[in-house]
Amino acid sequence: MHAFVILGHKAPLSPQFTLNDLPGGAGRLDVLCRCLNAALFLSHDLRRQVEAFLVLQNQICVRVCGQHVKRLNPDERSTAALIKKALEALQRAPDDAGPLESTPGIWVARQTLPGLLDAFKTSGFSPVLLHEGGEGLRQAALPDAPAFVLSDHMDFEPKELAALAGAPCLSVGPRVYPASHCIAVVNNELDLRAV
Amino acid sequence: MHAFVILGHKAPLSPQFTLNDLPGGAGRLDVLCRCLNAALFLSHDLRRQVEAFLVLQNQICVRVCGQHVKRLNPDERSTAALIKKALEALQRAPDDAGPLESTPGIWVARQTLPGLLDAFKTSGFSPVLLHEGGEGLRQAALPDAPAFVLSDHMDFEPKELAALAGAPCLSVGPRVYPASHCIAVVNNELDLRAV
Repeated sequence: MHAFVILGHKAPLSPQFTLNDLPGGAGRLDVLCRCLNAALFLSHDLRRQVEAFLVLQNQICVRVCGQHVKRLNPDERSTAALIKKALEALQRAPDDAGPLESTPGIWVARQTLPGLLDAFKTSGFSPVLLHEGGEGLRQAALPDAPAFVLSDHMDFEPKELAALAGAPCLSVGPRVYPASHCIAVVNNELDLRAV
Repeated sequence: MHAFVILGHKAPLSPQFTLNDLPGGAGRLDVLCRCLNAALFLSHDLRRQVEAFLVLQNQICVRVCGQHVKRLNPDERSTAALIKKALEALQRAPDDAGPLESTPGIWVARQTLPGLLDAFKTSGFSPVLLHEGGEGLRQAALPDAPAFVLSDHMDFEPKELAALAGAPCLSVGPRVYPASHCIAVVNNELDLRAV
């Protein structure tokens, strides 16, 4: 069991965006959709042991659970449509609503990164920061249920790094990759270790 | 210098498709767009030493040259729009036209997989088959200018495997990945070897 947490710094907080302009009007939602693809897809199958958490502007968390998710397809547009549905569900809910299952296997809640990290203490995930300055992934010891935290196309903010203080910091290679490529590399490393 | 060749078995041969339905009406063009992303993008930069070749139904080849390409963005929709432009340029050209540069750094030609492999003998690329049955990538010796050949969401066809007979066959891991994930893993392996 492992997880990925992707911090979307410009991602939409409301469903009022068009699926025809994910990089622009939807605040680089294309980046987050590719991250979900990299986290959850095998060829013609899903990684049922993986969870992915999209943290939108440190205010909303969309959780995609590999074990339960349905209707998730590999392409960006249909994935963004599921996120849009999640934001619609949240918009209709009272402010103090708990996590809502907007479509099978996708939950949405008003939750910050510190709130998510707090919840990990109960669910058992151990945060691992993925950042170009970290120790090499291939050489690193990993916790039992790592939750790899990545930033979208922008750098981590100081308050995010503060929330993650104490977490191990790993790097996948000598060059700086898009978040979705890092996720593909991490999944491959875990697959190879599991053999 | 290395390259990726992605075989698109259902990819469109004409520009008459909508950008709103890449997985359906455009024959899983979303898969090929993600492959271009994985082949060519670093974070906020391009891999200038990489070339990517999309072979559409063994009839048309779209070549994207990292050194020269412009206007390439990471998202599927805008990438598909560049492929559409390439197919428009080819549609306007006479049947015996040579490669056409449809937008900067993107060339399109009527070319089969065997034709492309023949051209590699001149350009110096050595084909390497990526397939789940192959030798582990991390342990493998690689030629100087490898051109990694992958299939899209469908299996290689017997005639494709016949055209690639004699090429080394490598696998990135113990599970079967989408082509774009394989590309991200290969680029990471080459980055780590280059250090």
